[in-house]
Amino acid sequence: MTETTDTVPGWLSGEEMDAARQRLPIVYVNAVPVRTDDSGTVTRVGLLLRAAPDSTISRALVAGRVLYHERIRDALVRHLEKDLGPVALPRIPASPQPFTVAEYFPTPGITPFHDPRQHAVAMAYVVPVAGDCRPRQDALDLEWFTPEEAASPELQQEMSGGQGVLLKQALAHVGRLP
Amino acid sequence: MTETTDTVPGWLSGEEMDAARQRLPIVYVNAVPVRTDDSGTVTRVGLLLRAAPDSTISRALVAGRVLYHERIRDALVRHLEKDLGPVALPRIPASPQPFTVAEYFPTPGITPFHDPRQHAVAMAYVVPVAGDCRPRQDALDLEWFTPEEAASPELQQEMSGGQGVLLKQALAHVGRLP
Amino acid sequence: MTETTDTVPGWLSGEEMDAARQRLPIVYVNAVPVRTDDSGTVTRVGLLLRAAPDSTISRALVAGRVLYHERIRDALVRHLEKDLGPVALPRIPASPQPFTVAEYFPTPGITPFHDPRQHAVAMAYVVPVAGDCRPRQDALDLEWFTPEEAASPELQQEMSGGQGVLLKQALAHVGRLP
Amino acid sequence: MTETTDTVPGWLSGEEMDAARQRLPIVYVNAVPVRTDDSGTVTRVGLLLRAAPDSTISRALVAGRVLYHERIRDALVRHLEKDLGPVALPRIPASPQPFTVAEYFPTPGITPFHDPRQHAVAMAYVVPVAGDCRPRQDALDLEWFTPEEAASPELQQEMSGGQGVLLKQALAHVGRLP
Repeated sequence: MTETTDTVPGWLSGEEMDAARQRLPIVYVNAVPVRTDDSGTVTRVGLLLRAAPDSTISRALVAGRVLYHERIRDALVRHLEKDLGPVALPRIPASPQPFTVAEYFPTPGITPFHDPRQHAVAMAYVVPVAGDCRPRQDALDLEWFTPEEAASPELQQEMSGGQGVLLKQALAHVGRLP
Repeated sequence: MTETTDTVPGWLSGEEMDAARQRLPIVYVNAVPVRTDDSGTVTRVGLLLRAAPDSTISRALVAGRVLYHERIRDALVRHLEKDLGPVALPRIPASPQPFTVAEYFPTPGITPFHDPRQHAVAMAYVVPVAGDCRPRQDALDLEWFTPEEAASPELQQEMSGGQGVLLKQALAHVGRLP
Repeated sequence: MTETTDTVPGWLSGEEMDAARQRLPIVYVNAVPVRTDDSGTVTRVGLLLRAAPDSTISRALVAGRVLYHERIRDALVRHLEKDLGPVALPRIPASPQPFTVAEYFPTPGITPFHDPRQHAVAMAYVVPVAGDCRPRQDALDLEWFTPEEAASPELQQEMSGGQGVLLKQALAHVGRLP
Repeated sequence: MTETTDTVPGWLSGEEMDAARQRLPIVYVNAVPVRTDDSGTVTRVGLLLRAAPDSTISRALVAGRVLYHERIRDALVRHLEKDLGPVALPRIPASPQPFTVAEYFPTPGITPFHDPRQHAVAMAYVVPVAGDCRPRQDALDLEWFTPEEAASPELQQEMSGGQGVLLKQALAHVGRLP
């Protein structure tokens, strides 16, 4: 690819470096784990229960960074395994086409998505999981909800950063938005 | 979004900083400019003629970085205006869903896409343009091709970094791959 | 295409013929007319005001049958012109990929979509319209709503057959579901 | 859905009935069976070997009609089982969004797709199959090809009605078009 105008930082102090780093949007993936029946119909949506550093509890989608030299599909495998455990048997989509791209801005209100720490551009996928899910790391639990429950105001309120909207977009994409 | 494992560089020297910078994939957009008829059928595909620093000539799609705090659709507007001029009247898609995501790796062969300078993750869109195109900057020219010409081995050979493959993916997406 | 098992009716009476005809799902298109700004962001959604034979009033999307030997994109042009008038300047999508397929069943409850008269399979598209809209035929009026208004319970209630759900799916697809 | 202009045939003779029947496009599904690895990458594409009534042999995708009162996903299950046997374990997509819509016209040349018997509108899906495939009925065999083989001129020549083009569109969609 040829592209010309964007400047590349040279020698920088630590602070400048932090600033420079902040000036790059970060490549992310978002995954919505689902259970499906034999005809592919989504019957349940999986949400993580997370404790934030300030010990507030929230529901969350599987999310994380794409590393340097890592394919999106490998990042999906890695984050799903990190959050759902090693025997979740996620069925990574055959196509790289995401159902949407969620743009998390550090400033709220520009898009429905907000991340105070960074500008993250998340390619979002619905991922059927067929195996046993055993949340690890900072995820306290994984709970399965019907599409109706997932779209309810109660559950939407327990999600932050716009992930409730993304969840509804996923439900719309699979034809299960109530 | 909550995500935990990826380390963040602290105080770094310039060289380390360059290395650190290289460790982040860069968010890109790719746009395939097209002419359509009244029924939306793609009749022509626009390709830029570019001179590389080593003065080799190649055909290229519209491509470029998404800046910090810039929406993808604003990056599309900016790069299309940069490459096609101010009166091209591009019709940016209403949906953020790209037709594919092209992962340009610094190492060839991992995906069909290759960029020796960086790991770029490009969301790719087909963009109808209705106005006059006047290439600017380092683009020498813009030429319009029929879908048959665009998919021909001759023209494919004039494209680099896998953009010929991406062009064929775009043609397939609009139902015009011969 | 080769396909074997489905029986083809032979000589039938009129009644049998009606029954046979009912046994075929009908190919439909659904279009969601939208206004967009220069960056492609959807700012308004257009809904038709229709009077049903029983003189109830409802809001509706552009919808209609695909005729024998008619391309989907030509059916879109025809129905948009029928409902929005000849100078609406609809921008038919370049890609035949619909944002969803709405399956209207004569029996309610199987899918979110219901049509008492027939089994209709509707490919659904978001269509930006740039010109003046002058509803014709049985459409009394066309009114433009913000995405927030379009997704509101009030307006959803004025739509029938599941078109309110389809409208929310369209809003989700363009990233404007509140 | 409200729609007004299309006439509905009344009492018809058998011949008129055949003609009337021909006047409706038929709802179809097309499925491209694939093998994927753990990261979802398509490694093989499955093609049926079919003998036409004139005993010519051709390669074909899984294809067939959607019946009255049948959901698209149930039609996919039925045709995949019919062609690949009962233990193929197809993973029907969670989303009804097809990767494309193939419009088979009785007249060649209007679209890339041609079916001399009818006007068929086929929603096309890539379907990973995890189990054993045992072709039945008029399918002589199922053979697995690499993406490179599937896109080769030799294999493309063995397909008819434009299914070779559709296969390339599927490969493009999953990022495996060479």
